[in-house]
Amino acid sequence: MAIRTVVWGENVHETKNRIVAGVYPQGMHQAIADALNQDPAIQATTATLQEPEHGLPQERLDATDVLLWWGHAAHKEVSDEVVERVAEAVWSGMGLLVLHSGHFSKIFKRLMGAPCNLTWREAGERERLWVTSRNHPIAAGLPDHFELEQEEMYGEPFGVPEPLETVFVSWFQGGEVFRSGLTYKRGAGSVFYFRPGHETYPTYHDANVQLVLKNAVKWAYNPGPRQADPTEAPNIPVETALEPIEERGPKLHHAGEEGYR
Amino acid sequence: MAIRTVVWGENVHETKNRIVAGVYPQGMHQAIADALNQDPAIQATTATLQEPEHGLPQERLDATDVLLWWGHAAHKEVSDEVVERVAEAVWSGMGLLVLHSGHFSKIFKRLMGAPCNLTWREAGERERLWVTSRNHPIAAGLPDHFELEQEEMYGEPFGVPEPLETVFVSWFQGGEVFRSGLTYKRGAGSVFYFRPGHETYPTYHDANVQLVLKNAVKWAYNPGPRQADPTEAPNIPVETALEPIEERGPKLHHAGEEGYR
Amino acid sequence: MAIRTVVWGENVHETKNRIVAGVYPQGMHQAIADALNQDPAIQATTATLQEPEHGLPQERLDATDVLLWWGHAAHKEVSDEVVERVAEAVWSGMGLLVLHSGHFSKIFKRLMGAPCNLTWREAGERERLWVTSRNHPIAAGLPDHFELEQEEMYGEPFGVPEPLETVFVSWFQGGEVFRSGLTYKRGAGSVFYFRPGHETYPTYHDANVQLVLKNAVKWAYNPGPRQADPTEAPNIPVETALEPIEERGPKLHHAGEEGYR
Amino acid sequence: MAIRTVVWGENVHETKNRIVAGVYPQGMHQAIADALNQDPAIQATTATLQEPEHGLPQERLDATDVLLWWGHAAHKEVSDEVVERVAEAVWSGMGLLVLHSGHFSKIFKRLMGAPCNLTWREAGERERLWVTSRNHPIAAGLPDHFELEQEEMYGEPFGVPEPLETVFVSWFQGGEVFRSGLTYKRGAGSVFYFRPGHETYPTYHDANVQLVLKNAVKWAYNPGPRQADPTEAPNIPVETALEPIEERGPKLHHAGEEGYR
Repeated sequence: MAIRTVVWGENVHETKNRIVAGVYPQGMHQAIADALNQDPAIQATTATLQEPEHGLPQERLDATDVLLWWGHAAHKEVSDEVVERVAEAVWSGMGLLVLHSGHFSKIFKRLMGAPCNLTWREAGERERLWVTSRNHPIAAGLPDHFELEQEEMYGEPFGVPEPLETVFVSWFQGGEVFRSGLTYKRGAGSVFYFRPGHETYPTYHDANVQLVLKNAVKWAYNPGPRQADPTEAPNIPVETALEPIEERGPKLHHAGEEGYR
Repeated sequence: MAIRTVVWGENVHETKNRIVAGVYPQGMHQAIADALNQDPAIQATTATLQEPEHGLPQERLDATDVLLWWGHAAHKEVSDEVVERVAEAVWSGMGLLVLHSGHFSKIFKRLMGAPCNLTWREAGERERLWVTSRNHPIAAGLPDHFELEQEEMYGEPFGVPEPLETVFVSWFQGGEVFRSGLTYKRGAGSVFYFRPGHETYPTYHDANVQLVLKNAVKWAYNPGPRQADPTEAPNIPVETALEPIEERGPKLHHAGEEGYR
Repeated sequence: MAIRTVVWGENVHETKNRIVAGVYPQGMHQAIADALNQDPAIQATTATLQEPEHGLPQERLDATDVLLWWGHAAHKEVSDEVVERVAEAVWSGMGLLVLHSGHFSKIFKRLMGAPCNLTWREAGERERLWVTSRNHPIAAGLPDHFELEQEEMYGEPFGVPEPLETVFVSWFQGGEVFRSGLTYKRGAGSVFYFRPGHETYPTYHDANVQLVLKNAVKWAYNPGPRQADPTEAPNIPVETALEPIEERGPKLHHAGEEGYR
Repeated sequence: MAIRTVVWGENVHETKNRIVAGVYPQGMHQAIADALNQDPAIQATTATLQEPEHGLPQERLDATDVLLWWGHAAHKEVSDEVVERVAEAVWSGMGLLVLHSGHFSKIFKRLMGAPCNLTWREAGERERLWVTSRNHPIAAGLPDHFELEQEEMYGEPFGVPEPLETVFVSWFQGGEVFRSGLTYKRGAGSVFYFRPGHETYPTYHDANVQLVLKNAVKWAYNPGPRQADPTEAPNIPVETALEPIEERGPKLHHAGEEGYR
């Protein structure tokens, strides 16, 4: 069965800005989903901010293997309830790819526990991405480096936790560098941040970028069953301890009691 | 100058539970602060839930190098505003030590972006902590292992992100293991989680536990100046680029504009 | 195509010790290969110390996707030339699983750059392995913990580099703990260390252990092409620089010269 | 007491190449040691390839807290015995800083277990180092970036294991990037790789580079006692087990026997 993938798009600039609408007539989310669907192992649909519950009701997340997230102008309009729902889905095993300006999305900041800030410049300068982890599944089939002739610059220091692995580092024409591909795990879910994707440039039409996204969907896909309750903290009664022990000393809790949260 | 350290205690069970009050007559926070103050390099004071702003107004955090956090029954009573304030202080460079049941505190969950859940049993069983990172500063002066004759059990899987380093792993009499000492960095701040410390046992009177806490305060101490605004994302205008570049292509933003957040 | 897997066995105790021969009549390597071959995605064969070039000539390594390594009594008899050959194969993309007493094999020490030491006791005590990374591919299908009724004890501190991820931690009846499943990457190759497997016990007949090994083979499998020369350090002449630069300043090397190694 | 620091220099190009001799009349090792000695917390001396045992007899390593290593043309002339001695000193707790072309030194490759390869170009191009870990002790006092007007280029992919932390990433004028500051731990010893330092340029006279080296010496300094035998793997007899156990099952080893290595 194909990997059930949802591309979430903010879908704001596509409808308000002529340049963005020209580059992505069906919206960035649709362009990304179309690219992913070229791969028979992936079945991608879309969801947007404007839909009820932003297109991400619980049933849909339950049936989603990997979620991609692109947002920029409207991070604040995403409801906290949906953000928590997505976070729990990740913890239970759903994969998550966060794209470009999504570094400041509520869901990415929620999962990183860090500022996720950076420096930036919108000047259409050249970006060159270098692979820093040879044969990483996310870099499969890529050359050692590839270029995007026009991109927005993001510069270090990038305020994120040290990743499990740094997969890409970007060079920018104006003199900055950026760790552009970073892997994380939160609960049972794999998370990948990928830098390129400014809305006024045709980045998501680029073959190498599309390959990274296809690879990343496969990398983030978790074939096992979801964790039923990813935040539970079960009490293990003395009677069921794996090794025989006798209860000793003073107690705060009664047997079978729920812990404090 | 000594490391300005604040021990935050929930201070609930100490006042309501006779057993806890007997073990820690001045409160757990005071017992921990007293232990830290045995080291001339550390100057520890306390703060509690019941004080205005939980004893952590902005000025105090600005003058705090390392904060220790112990909470259990009243995690939900900690105000979200104070949690965000502490998170920003960590991102700007303040050290944070999270103790025992603090794994479910708002601040730890906020900084981890993960469920932070575990299994547990209150049976006064034996815990033995093993050093897994030789000569780690937090383990300085400790033997390869030490015991706590009575402790609450915490069991794996522990729902936290992979740490920078695993410093301790615990063995429990009832058959469980737990990664008991874990290091993280969030923004400019160092974070250490240390497992032992159930309120009905004299854990914080134990010499080895006290040594770990003293070591950890020194490890988490950041002598440099605080980051002034740890979440800022400054625009770098084309004119001030480090390498000369010409602006090209379509633009979304005007020069000097603030980015979206 | 199935994952081409080679199980390397020292094959010494199986031929000299009646107990080991009784548990593994065809040798441990064959028992492991048989278990792996139950999975149609894996095609496992064996190689042993006693074969020419220890059964690992260059052509065979070139046609091997994942190598498993079990050794104990005869680490020193493995030729340095074969060790370097295996190391280069790993760097070029071959997966490697190191089993139990293989912690002191030449190849594991070579790839870790660390002592790889530990404490040990052969008393047939109970080992319980706990999953510490939920839904890790290597733990797929396993419960949160599983037991081996009789195993050799290995205790911390384990002298290895901090891993990419800690997948299992073991509890031992005699009071020790051990990080039993650790992932690494060296060059383009993935490496997994898995603790259980003392030769006098039927560990490799255990269904959970077999599942871990099958999972680990799939995790370590790298479908991309091998790195042709995994140690090359190519000079990039000024004329072919990706950005136009002019040569400046004093030089040590002539154009096109090989670097020092 | 000041941190006892030894700067090891190959001392080949300084004596054979007029340019290098002009930039570093007393040798690169002496220039580095002089810079370190500006800091009263550090007491730096030098050692060179040409001295007996390359200036690193056991007694000297025993009295060294942190060793710096610069080599290039003569990696192969360093004796394997001294390399093993240095590796054991690191495992027992000595700090090690590996500089520039030392990426291909025997000791660095020994400790990394990886190819440590890269791409390179000697064209006197501009390098700009960016801090990627805010307030890391090694970056203390540095701005977010600093420049070296002329340096040799090193490009990714850099064939090293994923580090504990990435402290610096370099931008090069010719279009490459490089992870220029990487931290590791091997046994009880801390290891830092720092990229800049080509012998024909005045890199070690640069104030920012000198600050990095001073910071790194302090970071790598381990005040605790050395591990007496960093590779020992002691047998723990059943009689001294921390928890009472009875010996069960078949045995390979006799009581108190040494393990196989």
